[in-house]
Amino acid sequence: MSAGIAKLQRRQTAIDSLLCIGLDSNLARLPEQFRTQPEPQYRFNRWIIDQTHSYAAAYKINTAFYEARGAQGWSELSQTVEYLRQNHPDIVLIADAKRADIGSTSEAYAQAFFDTLGFDAITLHPYLGKEALTPFLERSDKVSIILCRTSNPGAGELQDRTEQDEPLWQTVARKVSSEWNEHHNCMLVVGATYPSELAQVRQIVGEMPLLIPGIGAQGGDLSAVLSAGLTTTGKGLLISASRSIIFDKNPSDSATKLRKEITALRDAQSAA
Amino acid sequence: MSAGIAKLQRRQTAIDSLLCIGLDSNLARLPEQFRTQPEPQYRFNRWIIDQTHSYAAAYKINTAFYEARGAQGWSELSQTVEYLRQNHPDIVLIADAKRADIGSTSEAYAQAFFDTLGFDAITLHPYLGKEALTPFLERSDKVSIILCRTSNPGAGELQDRTEQDEPLWQTVARKVSSEWNEHHNCMLVVGATYPSELAQVRQIVGEMPLLIPGIGAQGGDLSAVLSAGLTTTGKGLLISASRSIIFDKNPSDSATKLRKEITALRDAQSAA
Repeated sequence: MSAGIAKLQRRQTAIDSLLCIGLDSNLARLPEQFRTQPEPQYRFNRWIIDQTHSYAAAYKINTAFYEARGAQGWSELSQTVEYLRQNHPDIVLIADAKRADIGSTSEAYAQAFFDTLGFDAITLHPYLGKEALTPFLERSDKVSIILCRTSNPGAGELQDRTEQDEPLWQTVARKVSSEWNEHHNCMLVVGATYPSELAQVRQIVGEMPLLIPGIGAQGGDLSAVLSAGLTTTGKGLLISASRSIIFDKNPSDSATKLRKEITALRDAQSAA
Repeated sequence: MSAGIAKLQRRQTAIDSLLCIGLDSNLARLPEQFRTQPEPQYRFNRWIIDQTHSYAAAYKINTAFYEARGAQGWSELSQTVEYLRQNHPDIVLIADAKRADIGSTSEAYAQAFFDTLGFDAITLHPYLGKEALTPFLERSDKVSIILCRTSNPGAGELQDRTEQDEPLWQTVARKVSSEWNEHHNCMLVVGATYPSELAQVRQIVGEMPLLIPGIGAQGGDLSAVLSAGLTTTGKGLLISASRSIIFDKNPSDSATKLRKEITALRDAQSAA
């Protein structure tokens, strides 16, 4: 197992949490007291992290909301990662960057996120195939999280295209599981908004951990996700919520509550 | 026609050039005299732009090589765009960023590249479908350039998957052309390394302009590209070269030469 996957499992076990908190710190949505500060996104993130780190198996940082502010945003993204690495080295750090390019360019992206910034994991588009993603996949210390079934309402437009009874998202699950995962360092993204697809992905990939966005603001059903996605030993899920936690009046309460809800549902299902 | 596509056609006609120059300014490959300066990527880019702008219909900036240097790289990317906008407002500026995320996140990316940075166009992954890309597609002033057939050797792994005799890359071409292009602001990426696919894309999309990477370092055949990709009126292609121009001993000579070669081949084919 790769060091990155081992880190995730260690953290999930240590704090008994499947929760990933997404730092989608859109400037326009930050509380007034942060918006008017210098380094607003970094200060806001620190505040969120200080309140929620005990419940977080992972933090997921979506690059879009930082790039929207140019170099200053990128700098605050980098400060946030540094703060997490210094203060919470056990928590898994995911760059929700959704990158993928030809090999020589993917190499530069792998350097950017794994080395310059120091993330443990990155989300990736599958469209260019395994060969283009090699610079990510061969990093056995890190985690490559490939988009399989995305959480958006229009996900099926291309992902449901079917060849010999196998839709594209199933092909991605099968290929990642059997061909791309040589270093045991792959995960898949499956949206909480598609529990039936999630159940089928679990059938295809065995024990592989899955990153599940779409809980909270996007309306995914938590109970359906756990029932469809847990492995036979009650593991294998990293459930991400972003806006519903970080923009709550009380992020600490909302993180505690969601973590508890997830754990209770998991335990109920294991007992069933 | 969108303002962005009109700008491209105006520039291509004004200087009679189909050439796009890719500023893939990988720090490790910069000449010694730039590597040791402050702002090495920006200084190098200025030097390249000053030598090549007369032949460039567009510049294409691949974000990976700037992100590899963190916030400093992002700042030099931004300085480069600003330099081009100030000094060469007629040249089309393409963010080769290969982004795509769920709608609310795509909105932040559109803001980052179209507004904060001021690019005219951006490259996008199709995997999440039209709905997720709406924040880009509805920008009728800008250009959305969707990956169709990528130039990498392993492009076919998923792109060749076939539903009812139509491979995925053809589905993308057909959908972008007939459904995603409501504002006449779409282009497609088709690799120069796949001339036979290029010919079929041209059949599907009519006059739509195509961005063609893969000439030069990747070994695409220019003559085959022009023969397969030009419209019946000898238009519709933006041919990109990066490493073979910017890392040449004499970038100005290599840009002149390639532009001339493209134009000569185009004219020969129009005459044939």
